[in-house]
Amino acid sequence: MPKISNRGLAMPESPIRKLVPYAEKAKSKGVEVIHLNIGQPDIKTPEVALDRIKNIDLKVVEYSHSAGFESYRKGLANYYSEISKGITFEDIMVTTGGSEALAFGFSTCMNPGDEIIIPEPFYANYNGFAMAAGVKVQPIYSDIKSGFALPPIEEFEKKINKNTKGILICNPGNPTGYLYSQEELNQLKEIVAKYDLYLFADEVYREFCYDGKQHYSILNLEGIENNVIVVDSVSKRYSMCGARIGALISRNKEFMKTALKFGQARLSPPTFGQIASEAALETPDSYFEEVNKEYIERRDLLIDGLNSIDGVYCPKPGGAFYAVAELPVEDSDHFCQWILEDFELNGQTVMMAPASGFYATEGKGKNQVRLAYVLEKEKLKNAVDCLKAALKKYNEK
Amino acid sequence: MPKISNRGLAMPESPIRKLVPYAEKAKSKGVEVIHLNIGQPDIKTPEVALDRIKNIDLKVVEYSHSAGFESYRKGLANYYSEISKGITFEDIMVTTGGSEALAFGFSTCMNPGDEIIIPEPFYANYNGFAMAAGVKVQPIYSDIKSGFALPPIEEFEKKINKNTKGILICNPGNPTGYLYSQEELNQLKEIVAKYDLYLFADEVYREFCYDGKQHYSILNLEGIENNVIVVDSVSKRYSMCGARIGALISRNKEFMKTALKFGQARLSPPTFGQIASEAALETPDSYFEEVNKEYIERRDLLIDGLNSIDGVYCPKPGGAFYAVAELPVEDSDHFCQWILEDFELNGQTVMMAPASGFYATEGKGKNQVRLAYVLEKEKLKNAVDCLKAALKKYNEK
Repeated sequence: MPKISNRGLAMPESPIRKLVPYAEKAKSKGVEVIHLNIGQPDIKTPEVALDRIKNIDLKVVEYSHSAGFESYRKGLANYYSEISKGITFEDIMVTTGGSEALAFGFSTCMNPGDEIIIPEPFYANYNGFAMAAGVKVQPIYSDIKSGFALPPIEEFEKKINKNTKGILICNPGNPTGYLYSQEELNQLKEIVAKYDLYLFADEVYREFCYDGKQHYSILNLEGIENNVIVVDSVSKRYSMCGARIGALISRNKEFMKTALKFGQARLSPPTFGQIASEAALETPDSYFEEVNKEYIERRDLLIDGLNSIDGVYCPKPGGAFYAVAELPVEDSDHFCQWILEDFELNGQTVMMAPASGFYATEGKGKNQVRLAYVLEKEKLKNAVDCLKAALKKYNEK
Repeated sequence: MPKISNRGLAMPESPIRKLVPYAEKAKSKGVEVIHLNIGQPDIKTPEVALDRIKNIDLKVVEYSHSAGFESYRKGLANYYSEISKGITFEDIMVTTGGSEALAFGFSTCMNPGDEIIIPEPFYANYNGFAMAAGVKVQPIYSDIKSGFALPPIEEFEKKINKNTKGILICNPGNPTGYLYSQEELNQLKEIVAKYDLYLFADEVYREFCYDGKQHYSILNLEGIENNVIVVDSVSKRYSMCGARIGALISRNKEFMKTALKFGQARLSPPTFGQIASEAALETPDSYFEEVNKEYIERRDLLIDGLNSIDGVYCPKPGGAFYAVAELPVEDSDHFCQWILEDFELNGQTVMMAPASGFYATEGKGKNQVRLAYVLEKEKLKNAVDCLKAALKKYNEK
């Protein structure tokens, strides 16, 4: 039998995946599993997007341009110009989800052996894209005590060496929900300019900012226009994860030209998804107002509930729909498995993502979990009750 | 300004792309450009697929499983079992086009620095996927005089060294249209078994075989089940290039498990495209009969027409919808540019793909072009007339 590649063997598995068999087992026993472990919102996709698909009048489902349909890119240019003045459709490449934007971005900017700095905890799939591209992740610890604010800029400087090519942030963050301030982003700007690094920002949760806080895009950082690469996606914005439509946005023309060569090799992003996404640009503001109102209520219910449990600490996130909580346990991997295997309250149990999978540093986040508040409030309330009773029982053992 | 990666700089551009500005210029002068340069068929997508999309009743466009919807994989398992007995849905992973199947296949089997042998001329994007994965392509010259039959197996043996991990064929071939016989595939089996290599076959044109010839899938090569990886796509089969749905098929469980880790990092293949593709499995046989009849008529018209031109030689392809022709010119890159820039017949000119882009060996195929017969017969007839007159004028210069 021929061998699997080293990178194939080293590719990380999803931190959630190992719990799936335990969730299946719970379900087979008739226990309802409340899924706080994944970021698949239950929010409805805007009707304007689905209607466009239902009224499609294609005879042949053709390839689009490798950078995406020009009409869609022009529509996106309108959207991004409101975020940062002067963005044109030529600064935008449509990708197959934010995932492909990250993969193309990494391959365009970095060679195997190069390094990228990422504040941890971070979205676990960044590891997969780095591994696939042969790039090494240099994590920087951000502390739950500060609500996962940007680590001191000196910590970044300590990690920079001749192989360092970039810094990647997720803003607002998955898994932390932390929303970086303009001041924090300006600190990043200084160091990016000083060492001429790429600054990647995954801004897919941009529209989900709470408590009157404004999202500040790195596209607005003046003086480092050629360093700034934004990764985006329609998945969460329009609750359209399955459309697999994302984007790379940059004013760096050489970067865009090179990324397009990777895009040409894979021919084009999905046609149906682009059609739905172009229509979704017409989603009324009221949709976002309603969705944000809903997420704020869910967040408050979940976070306040968590913090009312003895020994649990969860900073209140300023955006996205995730939170990382510290639990009064030593090993959340074990606890998350145990609650699925051995616990139920009123026929329900809770599936959470152990936070260790979101840290690159071995041993970090062992008593933390990530929770996604993408379910209706009734379920979140039950989840908090269940978790409270479970922690009590677990710690009595 | 931060640097572009070496692999980004080295990524090849599409061999067609450099001619695009000349085609645009011709169009701006009012000349109609007959596109024989690309494999975007004008054939209609099956109605059953488009109807399913129009009647979609999703409320939330969710992710699918990373390996694709189970219902679709089970439908595909039926399709593949008719090709090779016993294929189950667990031997199948749905990908974002055949492109992603190739990318995942390469990364799963090969490390940077490893080598893959490919008979040339070959689909130019294989270079892009190899470059992105850090894999080196070892071309083996196949001759237009033999109609691009499999090169002698000793030639393969000469190229095998300690870094060789696989052989890749496209069957029937893009750009050659050559359909490998069972005997040729058995020769490949021997050498694959002898050196324990992976055997990749891109079988996306499987349904397009002519003159009563049968396609023989490498899935049927007994004794090398763990070596065989099939790359497939719905793009050409159902004229649904924009759906971006493909598949990896292998009985090698370790390979499938590892490829899925790359799939998990990118979350899922497109939901709309999978829905259309699952419906397309119900396409009636009459669709393929009609399409194949149409392609045979187009092929005969084009190939016979080409061979009636002085100095042109084009072997008749047994499958797919491409042909490689030898022209009485020294440099087809120059000729393909010239015909767009400086020639027209009755207000029309022809865009072809210079074949040099399909050879990895420098200097090969300089007097050849690739032509795709994906247009209606009237246009193909005009294209032949135009080419004939153009060659006459070009050679009078």
